[in-house]
Amino acid sequence: MGYSRRGGGSTVPRMVRKNHRFTLAARPIGLVKSTDFAYEEEELRELRDGELVVKVQYISLDPAMRGWMNDVKSYIPPIKLGELMRAAAIGRVVESNHPRFAVGDHVSGAFGVQELAISNGEGVIKVDPTQAPLPVMLSTLGMPGLTAYFGLLDVGKPVAGNTVVVSGAAGAVGSVVGQIAKIHGCRTVGIAGGADKCRYLTEIGFDAAIDYKAGDIKAALRDHCPQGIDVFFDNVGGDILDAAMTRLARGARIVICGAISQYNNTTPVKGPSNYLSLLVNRASMTGMVVFDYAARYGEAVREMAQWMAAGKLKSREDIVRGLEQFPAALLKLFTGDNHGKLVLEVV
Amino acid sequence: MGYSRRGGGSTVPRMVRKNHRFTLAARPIGLVKSTDFAYEEEELRELRDGELVVKVQYISLDPAMRGWMNDVKSYIPPIKLGELMRAAAIGRVVESNHPRFAVGDHVSGAFGVQELAISNGEGVIKVDPTQAPLPVMLSTLGMPGLTAYFGLLDVGKPVAGNTVVVSGAAGAVGSVVGQIAKIHGCRTVGIAGGADKCRYLTEIGFDAAIDYKAGDIKAALRDHCPQGIDVFFDNVGGDILDAAMTRLARGARIVICGAISQYNNTTPVKGPSNYLSLLVNRASMTGMVVFDYAARYGEAVREMAQWMAAGKLKSREDIVRGLEQFPAALLKLFTGDNHGKLVLEVV
Repeated sequence: MGYSRRGGGSTVPRMVRKNHRFTLAARPIGLVKSTDFAYEEEELRELRDGELVVKVQYISLDPAMRGWMNDVKSYIPPIKLGELMRAAAIGRVVESNHPRFAVGDHVSGAFGVQELAISNGEGVIKVDPTQAPLPVMLSTLGMPGLTAYFGLLDVGKPVAGNTVVVSGAAGAVGSVVGQIAKIHGCRTVGIAGGADKCRYLTEIGFDAAIDYKAGDIKAALRDHCPQGIDVFFDNVGGDILDAAMTRLARGARIVICGAISQYNNTTPVKGPSNYLSLLVNRASMTGMVVFDYAARYGEAVREMAQWMAAGKLKSREDIVRGLEQFPAALLKLFTGDNHGKLVLEVV
Repeated sequence: MGYSRRGGGSTVPRMVRKNHRFTLAARPIGLVKSTDFAYEEEELRELRDGELVVKVQYISLDPAMRGWMNDVKSYIPPIKLGELMRAAAIGRVVESNHPRFAVGDHVSGAFGVQELAISNGEGVIKVDPTQAPLPVMLSTLGMPGLTAYFGLLDVGKPVAGNTVVVSGAAGAVGSVVGQIAKIHGCRTVGIAGGADKCRYLTEIGFDAAIDYKAGDIKAALRDHCPQGIDVFFDNVGGDILDAAMTRLARGARIVICGAISQYNNTTPVKGPSNYLSLLVNRASMTGMVVFDYAARYGEAVREMAQWMAAGKLKSREDIVRGLEQFPAALLKLFTGDNHGKLVLEVV
């Protein structure tokens, strides 16, 4: 039995809680595999003042997680071997010694791939479960949606009538990019893998969809972008980025959001061989990280929630049930087998 | 004997004039060689109304010429086989049926690699030979200087205290970039090949010079840019661009002005393998072409001429004498054997 103090120093008995979690067991070489992770059971330690316990309900599975597993300096430090797998998640407060959070609150934060998270409240925000289903808050109204919103509008700067092309278009970020571009009066072309995903793109309002598995991307871009590409929002890198560079319009903006095709490379990243197209077309290529826009998350979520309510912005989640499915579910991201935002439901 | 009409329809005898010129005989594979050009003698045709004849004195030899020799769409059309080699040049008007130009005027324009150019005056501007020596008008006060000025200030947007790194730093563009950055209060680091060029960089005021032939560029950039690179002005591409990308500061701007290391490639251009550093560092990479700033050439030349007069901006030209030296002189650009702006003097 553990004891947790509440308020005026009184102690109440607390049940022993078992937590299950995934830690990083090995740095992956190429694609992730189940032996790169360890599934562990632990007894939850006693709660301190200013802490809360979250029962994790939905875990966001994102391409960026692959990067955090490498021992490489990036915009955040890598996960250490033996450490909890970092992940954004959403859950319910089940215990609290924290003044801002009460038992029953729904919260989102970097709770990791586990059932129960102890948090000091840093980076944790309350969410309103009546505003949208919880998985949507990890998707269109969460980091992927915010990435799409700021990456497209602040970095890509689309103007009505522009041609906006997005790679990884059926993914959590890409599908929102295309829909926001459409709302802003742009012609939108999505690149995705497979007929199913391409059909989905046209269902949610893309003007055209290119199946990169079905043929020559350059030729398809030529057909669908007769005036060239004004904004290319890239989630993929590799050959698709290179193909897009052959079709840039004068003054084009490339937004570098990710490069999922390169994350599992065992050889050096393929740089864009056609980058001199930036010179010929007076174009730019700019990297973005959503965290820089934290002060404006609220405004973006409000606007996107309105678009969703108006039926202009659709969200699709691919929900995998069961914490123990984590390694297999994560792999789906890199094999392209997910349809919509990949979320792990902890049952 | 030809006749050229002047003024009220009167005709005066005109001497037969022989012109010598270089045309493109073959599309080069890899480095240019003398057989890629044909040296031709022709009789100058009769002058029409609205035309002038320029005796070419100095011809600008530029890395961009290599690109024009390929049968590839770029910011200007390629030179056709059998056509005059395109080149910027400066000369004196020796005959004129053009209202804006009189015999004796000094003019600059795209006169090509030849002794005598017939022009309709399009793109031809008068220059004042008392303002600076004529070769300087093809160098710091010409296209290379203008490229440096607008590329650095308008695209690179340096702020006092920034670290500005320039590749091809001893070249016509690079040397001006470094000096303008210094005038704007930046720390300036030049990358060039060989001890001679590096010595020259420190003579004209660069804070540090890196000899890319002498060792590890990444390590040298680490030493000389302890706060990272805020502006990287790239004339070179290839491994040097890739090395610079490992040292970008948050929000860095890369200006893509050229990629001389890649112009003679027989294999595909090497794309920058470290381009995801743009994402990690929220950095941008933007291409520029000087022609877009034509409306502002005057203001830039005035400011640069003042800097030259004040001794803050130095210009160095590498003058090769003799039109027939053209193929060998052009090759010097790509082997790195020129010191300063390469100019061919027609004697």
